[in-house]
Amino acid sequence: MSEKLIGSCIFGQSGGPTAVINASAYGVIRAALDADEITKVYGAAHGIRGVLDDKLYVMDEEDPNELKLLLNTPSSELGSCRYKIADPEKDDTDYKRILEIFKKYNVRYFFYNGGNDSMDTCNKISRYMESVGYECRVMGVPKTIDNDLFGTDHCPGFASAAKYIATSCMEINKDARVYDNGMITIVEIMGRHAGWLAASAALASEFGSGPDLIYLPETDFDMDKFLDDVMRIYKANGKVLVAVSEGIHYADGSFVSEAKTSATDGFGHAQLGGLASLLANIIKEKSGAKVRGIELSLLQRCGAHLASLTDINEACAAGREAVEQAVSGTTGKMVAFEREMIDGKYNCKLVLLPLSSVANYEKKVPMEWINEEHNGLKHEFIDYVLPLIQGEPKLPLEHSLPRYARLKKVLAK
Amino acid sequence: MSEKLIGSCIFGQSGGPTAVINASAYGVIRAALDADEITKVYGAAHGIRGVLDDKLYVMDEEDPNELKLLLNTPSSELGSCRYKIADPEKDDTDYKRILEIFKKYNVRYFFYNGGNDSMDTCNKISRYMESVGYECRVMGVPKTIDNDLFGTDHCPGFASAAKYIATSCMEINKDARVYDNGMITIVEIMGRHAGWLAASAALASEFGSGPDLIYLPETDFDMDKFLDDVMRIYKANGKVLVAVSEGIHYADGSFVSEAKTSATDGFGHAQLGGLASLLANIIKEKSGAKVRGIELSLLQRCGAHLASLTDINEACAAGREAVEQAVSGTTGKMVAFEREMIDGKYNCKLVLLPLSSVANYEKKVPMEWINEEHNGLKHEFIDYVLPLIQGEPKLPLEHSLPRYARLKKVLAK
Repeated sequence: MSEKLIGSCIFGQSGGPTAVINASAYGVIRAALDADEITKVYGAAHGIRGVLDDKLYVMDEEDPNELKLLLNTPSSELGSCRYKIADPEKDDTDYKRILEIFKKYNVRYFFYNGGNDSMDTCNKISRYMESVGYECRVMGVPKTIDNDLFGTDHCPGFASAAKYIATSCMEINKDARVYDNGMITIVEIMGRHAGWLAASAALASEFGSGPDLIYLPETDFDMDKFLDDVMRIYKANGKVLVAVSEGIHYADGSFVSEAKTSATDGFGHAQLGGLASLLANIIKEKSGAKVRGIELSLLQRCGAHLASLTDINEACAAGREAVEQAVSGTTGKMVAFEREMIDGKYNCKLVLLPLSSVANYEKKVPMEWINEEHNGLKHEFIDYVLPLIQGEPKLPLEHSLPRYARLKKVLAK
Repeated sequence: MSEKLIGSCIFGQSGGPTAVINASAYGVIRAALDADEITKVYGAAHGIRGVLDDKLYVMDEEDPNELKLLLNTPSSELGSCRYKIADPEKDDTDYKRILEIFKKYNVRYFFYNGGNDSMDTCNKISRYMESVGYECRVMGVPKTIDNDLFGTDHCPGFASAAKYIATSCMEINKDARVYDNGMITIVEIMGRHAGWLAASAALASEFGSGPDLIYLPETDFDMDKFLDDVMRIYKANGKVLVAVSEGIHYADGSFVSEAKTSATDGFGHAQLGGLASLLANIIKEKSGAKVRGIELSLLQRCGAHLASLTDINEACAAGREAVEQAVSGTTGKMVAFEREMIDGKYNCKLVLLPLSSVANYEKKVPMEWINEEHNGLKHEFIDYVLPLIQGEPKLPLEHSLPRYARLKKVLAK
């Protein structure tokens, strides 16, 4: 146990929102409010931008019951940003400003919640503060629906998105098979470089009704092979449901969604409606079949009403752990998850990783979990994802609609 | 009480699926299995097509617990069709075939679940059977997410779709306001001729976070006025959420989604991505703002996990009522809903309407519930829709994913 460090803290949210990033916020804020060492708890408006702009909300002023509603409030309640700060060796303007703000509010703890880029930001701030001799403990809390953070078994936010995707695919599949005529349905799922989310559609197939085919960015996409796959099932069953990751790409690395599609597809002009409608149009042109493209869009990342309780609990625990570890003397680490099986039952163990090891590396779906045909998942993937989506939160409702946190957001002066 | 009519029954589902049409199926099937007068309960595969094709499932063979799961299973479990039968005066081929099947299975009760067209089918079959002196009691059970059936306060399926739309708009709104830069989001909602569903997005605005602007097909769409509305809010707040009905149309009646948009929009070429991306592209071109188009697609009609318990209960009750009334001697009627306020509390009273009065008339959102600016709803609409979305069903789950009914579907011989 290192010496007690007394001072205030800043918490910030960064990157794309998720269904449970506010659960991590609650974990951090609640633990910080409870910690004797932390004198004041500030929430940065729009992540690091709020620090640079001196726009900080005083969390101590919030009603504890409203704060608790953060557990079930989707998106980033304090606001997010995609601002990338420079390397301190190249340009230290931002760091000087951050130091100025830290000194102004006697900030001795900085907690940052986000994905790869945010851990990079965290790491740079941590190193800078050390280099100038300003004592501040910096901790990262992971978050990303993409599930691509290195060194952690999984990321908060992924499981709830996976559950939304699986449930929605089950519902879509029910709907898409209802008529007595043929129908091909293409569902586009988020995931630019890693296919974890599209892969989660396999849960629907495993437990009832889901996609016949799933394509991930981990493998090269072949339009002819794709059309063969689709038409084979269409001829046999009259109905096909396909899930595609938005990041599927040809062997040359060009995204299917952006490329002027291959010479074989008959299409040459730019598409406006995204990947699902592009593929739908190609299939329609080739086959004459009735085809529908569906984009799950940002519904999949903010679907708090379908959140996994496991995900909420883990997201909150990660936030709390970051605070408790920092108060105990830790700095420069990200809270990560290690999977344990205790008596055959899933358990999530919290561990700490150096921030420097996490940044800028994308974890992908292992090739050995993807089937030989590159159009579906093996059971190893189901075993991996199933424990993560378990449990349903008791959602706070008002008039049978979600009751989200309503924060006062009193600005610090 | 008329004389007892002993014989079997056929139940069929028709038109577009909903989150609760299977709840009506359960109401019909359970009541029919329980009725002494009904000797056998058949479910038609794909509605009237199943009758014509002699493809009937024997409901008596199903596990009662699986049947009960129909209450929370979206889409039309027996399959649907959009087959339109001819006028019996013009071509009675189909009717002769239906009579043949009715005689083969001694069918004395026919229950049909659907929208306008299905009630028309029901009515024609009823009249034909009467004209040839074959005693068969024919009853319609209403269904449509569009809520446009004449003579009933509302339609089963609408409220669950409305709840899905309102909840999703709340989530989208949270997500769309997260960054510190400007953002305009367009959500496209079903409803070709009546705007009930798009109007339901107003629930999100009323109770927390929803669209700033809502456009319905009940009024003429004016692209210049629309762009002015959007840009005014964009300039003031930096964020705009817009809900549009897929059926919005110009004053000349042409759909905005299909028309080469007006001369003022700068677009001339055909669009592939639907109305939301069309409008998004027009706004982007005009304003340079970041714009996102979202289509709720068929997710909104099959979202059983967000169904209204009130809707489920009413859908089931309508099915049960059709059977009980038929057994008691009624024929040629559709079950409809009348709204009562008892001690200020909403109550749904079941009434009967002549089938002939229902068919082929579309009920629209009253003009006096739409605001003066034609870009939002008045409180009268909220008062109308709010009681309908109340209550959450206890969803049967397996591995934290929906557990739908698994029927054996044993074919009648």
